[in-house]
Amino acid sequence: MTYQVPVDDIFAALKTAANLDARMAAGIYGDLDAATLRAVIEEAGKFGAEVLEPINREGDKHGCRLVDGKVVTPPGWNEAYKAFTEAGWSALPCPPEYGGQGLPEIAQMAVGEVWNSSNMAFGVGPLLTQGAIHALMISGSDELKSTYLPRMVSGEWTGTMNLTEPHAGSDLGELRSKAVPQGDGTYRIFGTKIFISYGEHEMSDNIVHLVLARLPDAPQGTRGISLFLVPKYLVNADGSRGARNDVVCAGLEHKLGIHGSPTCVMKYGEQDGAIGWLVGTENRGLNTMFIMMNQARLAVGVQGVAVAERATQRAEAYARERRQGSALGGQPGVMVPIIEHADIRRSLLTMKALTHAARMLCYATAGEIDAAHAATDPAAKQMAEMRAALLTPVAKSFSTDIAVEVASIGVQIHGGMGFIEETGAAQHLRDARILPIYEGTNGIQAMDLVGRKLPLAGGAVVKAYIEELGQGVAEIAGSNRPEFGTMAAKLQAAVGALGKATMWIGGKLQSNPEAAMASATPYLRLFGIAAGGVYLGRAAVAAARDGDGAKAATLARFFAENILTAAAGLAETVTGGGDVVLETTADKLGA
Amino acid sequence: MTYQVPVDDIFAALKTAANLDARMAAGIYGDLDAATLRAVIEEAGKFGAEVLEPINREGDKHGCRLVDGKVVTPPGWNEAYKAFTEAGWSALPCPPEYGGQGLPEIAQMAVGEVWNSSNMAFGVGPLLTQGAIHALMISGSDELKSTYLPRMVSGEWTGTMNLTEPHAGSDLGELRSKAVPQGDGTYRIFGTKIFISYGEHEMSDNIVHLVLARLPDAPQGTRGISLFLVPKYLVNADGSRGARNDVVCAGLEHKLGIHGSPTCVMKYGEQDGAIGWLVGTENRGLNTMFIMMNQARLAVGVQGVAVAERATQRAEAYARERRQGSALGGQPGVMVPIIEHADIRRSLLTMKALTHAARMLCYATAGEIDAAHAATDPAAKQMAEMRAALLTPVAKSFSTDIAVEVASIGVQIHGGMGFIEETGAAQHLRDARILPIYEGTNGIQAMDLVGRKLPLAGGAVVKAYIEELGQGVAEIAGSNRPEFGTMAAKLQAAVGALGKATMWIGGKLQSNPEAAMASATPYLRLFGIAAGGVYLGRAAVAAARDGDGAKAATLARFFAENILTAAAGLAETVTGGGDVVLETTADKLGA
Repeated sequence: MTYQVPVDDIFAALKTAANLDARMAAGIYGDLDAATLRAVIEEAGKFGAEVLEPINREGDKHGCRLVDGKVVTPPGWNEAYKAFTEAGWSALPCPPEYGGQGLPEIAQMAVGEVWNSSNMAFGVGPLLTQGAIHALMISGSDELKSTYLPRMVSGEWTGTMNLTEPHAGSDLGELRSKAVPQGDGTYRIFGTKIFISYGEHEMSDNIVHLVLARLPDAPQGTRGISLFLVPKYLVNADGSRGARNDVVCAGLEHKLGIHGSPTCVMKYGEQDGAIGWLVGTENRGLNTMFIMMNQARLAVGVQGVAVAERATQRAEAYARERRQGSALGGQPGVMVPIIEHADIRRSLLTMKALTHAARMLCYATAGEIDAAHAATDPAAKQMAEMRAALLTPVAKSFSTDIAVEVASIGVQIHGGMGFIEETGAAQHLRDARILPIYEGTNGIQAMDLVGRKLPLAGGAVVKAYIEELGQGVAEIAGSNRPEFGTMAAKLQAAVGALGKATMWIGGKLQSNPEAAMASATPYLRLFGIAAGGVYLGRAAVAAARDGDGAKAATLARFFAENILTAAAGLAETVTGGGDVVLETTADKLGA
Repeated sequence: MTYQVPVDDIFAALKTAANLDARMAAGIYGDLDAATLRAVIEEAGKFGAEVLEPINREGDKHGCRLVDGKVVTPPGWNEAYKAFTEAGWSALPCPPEYGGQGLPEIAQMAVGEVWNSSNMAFGVGPLLTQGAIHALMISGSDELKSTYLPRMVSGEWTGTMNLTEPHAGSDLGELRSKAVPQGDGTYRIFGTKIFISYGEHEMSDNIVHLVLARLPDAPQGTRGISLFLVPKYLVNADGSRGARNDVVCAGLEHKLGIHGSPTCVMKYGEQDGAIGWLVGTENRGLNTMFIMMNQARLAVGVQGVAVAERATQRAEAYARERRQGSALGGQPGVMVPIIEHADIRRSLLTMKALTHAARMLCYATAGEIDAAHAATDPAAKQMAEMRAALLTPVAKSFSTDIAVEVASIGVQIHGGMGFIEETGAAQHLRDARILPIYEGTNGIQAMDLVGRKLPLAGGAVVKAYIEELGQGVAEIAGSNRPEFGTMAAKLQAAVGALGKATMWIGGKLQSNPEAAMASATPYLRLFGIAAGGVYLGRAAVAAARDGDGAKAATLARFFAENILTAAAGLAETVTGGGDVVLETTADKLGA
């Protein structure tokens, strides 16, 4: 079956979690109205279904090849990218002063969901170009901006991010690539970078690499890293494409998933050095990178939502079609569609509820980013920024963890056919598996949440957020709708458990930070389900108010009665499970 | 790193869960003593590490090819199989009267774990041959036995199981393959079977297919299915290989994992009918098949343990080697092995604890099978049989669910490298993903547990088992060891939750069976963690008694304080989460 953009679900998330109506009324979104936003998302859905999805399976089968230093992307990739840029999709969220359409983060999230549902291996490319544009906007000189941004916005040129080196994945402090100043404002870059998505290809006329490297006199560690722009082709004074720069793709990785996305080993300066330009301040490259990575992390969370959504749609279609077994109490010997079996419906409801909860978390984060962007009052700006900072690791990790879970359930619903690649269900699992890893592993996200985000404003940011969840629960309890079942009680227990676990972690951060870190992963999961559950419940209240609440109530109630039931146990794990982890040192673990 | 057979862990499971010492003392295992058993397992470990593991990755890369009707298995496959049979491994669990070594189920489980840890795609073959031997032992005529068993036991000939047809996966009642009696004691078989593992290959001189089909006058549904033996090559009167039978491999599946195992579409009777012989009684083929499948289900559970074990060993080796990040409170800028990070140790402990709990469940089941086999007292035999019947769906499902989880954590521990196929971690996830599906999906196992196994002996079987778990908890609580942390309390709560959920399900089976089925999957998980947790705790008590309890205590405590914490929530889900599933009928689910 073909992908259907879940525009109603996206709007429910925008309204409930991103506070769309109030923010539109407050003028945050300028002259963008809801009808236009919906039209954009629907149009994206058409493009995804008609252009990107048809090449998805071929992309998976063929993968990419490195031929004489050139990367050959899968059949249809070049054409699809051309159509993508011609339709203006690459320009959508970009600054109008460089030719962009200036749509806000929420719109970019929504269309990003569509690209990645239709074809995640394709979606990786625009995601990274957006990241590079973002980094240049934050820190690039006017000259770099005017030289590169218009063509990156139009999509004629694409962008990459070059962080990882063979010996240093997550630990950027250890990176060794060198940048040697030439005295003319340029630098020569030397080094090897790995895991560079779309590091080399022929889809665009040029590739703008953003590369982390060290200056000769740079301090050790993360405070001695600078960011450089290194184009594949130099740019002539008139803006035309010039000579080839000293950067090559030395290899492609053979990966578990996203085969259509070339993952390159990039070598800079194999000859006399790749020519690069400093982006931002010397030795402060990580600052830019981190701002950009935060947004990229959210975009990866949305990739998780996207793959989970696609896996769910595929599994539901199969469950409605495939006949197997007779219904309990039904006519013996008459096979029914497997969706008639309660266990299959439990699986489908799990997929839907997890996916939609994750979507809520992502849009909640995107809404705060937009609010921060638009805010004129510095206090309001800071509050929104801090809220976004708090939610980003949760949105990234929860959404990508559930993407793997949901895709795996999707395989299971297909039975034996799920294990056959032609079916398409297995690809979602393979594709999804990178999501908890890249842009900072989910373990790192959990430590970011606990170590950096909980202490924001002395703990006031998380405190206010949990209070807000509590108000949501009160609203749900107050609505007192019979179709909500025991939802309110479950939510109350879950938010209570989150509060308790947060207090405990806060205390440990003072007294024994390693104990806080040892429980970071179950804490993040607890945060994700509690918040996700409240958003689903609030969406159910809103839908009931609008007179069309059956579906929203079902998802929220299912989530509360079947997934949120884990909350108390997770809080117990957070507060009581870390000691044995700490006591089991590496030598004891193997003994 | 090379696979290391976890012989101590296997013995811990044998002693704690399979009651090895008492059963050996009672003479159940004849003259097999513990030292011999350990030597067999260690020898198997050597064979696995030296012969099967070295061809595992190649098998994954090359997969199988169908060339002119012949299946070409991966490089080294034929040689490894030859070495396997020459070393006598195929004969290990087989009846001595046909040349086997007559080792018990527990020994077969242990070596099966080794084959599947070393190379699951290879391990599938012997597993199915064992199943076919088992079916012939149960129901084959003396003539069929004497003609086929000696060569199947020696491994010269291999066996297959042919159940699934394109339109009917789990629902065997719908199968359409036909068997036409020829009046001479033979039948002509016509039909297409799919998902036939090792249905065609050149590793053995002959392939003995066991095929489910219908006689012309057979009743509809599952009561009209007969079992036939259909050899690839007919056998001459002198026992030599005769003419090719009318059975061909018409295609190979392109699968997510176990690429080295050929998954065949088999066509019977494309010409004048494949010649076959009835196994057992007409129309009673499923009885034989189910007895055999029960044992095969346990063997699949062991495959889950095996893949989880291998994924854990790989991840631990990587975590000890890979340096990344400085230790919290350690010297900044000095990268430490990632095992020093608490979050990584939590992941490794999760892998180890889940794997070992699953192993306990599998060996508990195998022990009951052996006890039933050896029992002379009919009541004791029946009790052991029913205990095995109760535990089989739990052993199969829990072990295979955790195999996927553990393999996924293994990928995660490797970070970006985990997504690269060369690393080997991703293959475990791909291979493991079939396990919750084949030999009856885990959803079907859950329904089997709830619908067929809980009602055994009017509920007395499960009641006695849960009481026994309670005694185990009392023993653990009584040992009162400080290194156990809060283990006893967590176990008590978990076994209490299991008891409560079991009562609830038992009531619903009377009043509203569909409600019981709607909660079957979370109930099975609860059963698995509660039982697994008690076994781990009992193993810790035993190890402490033997003076070497540190590792066992760590695993048991970690499991209790971090995994068993889910028990109360699962019981809540079982008793309170099913209503919304039932109420959400197929039409409401999509709305």
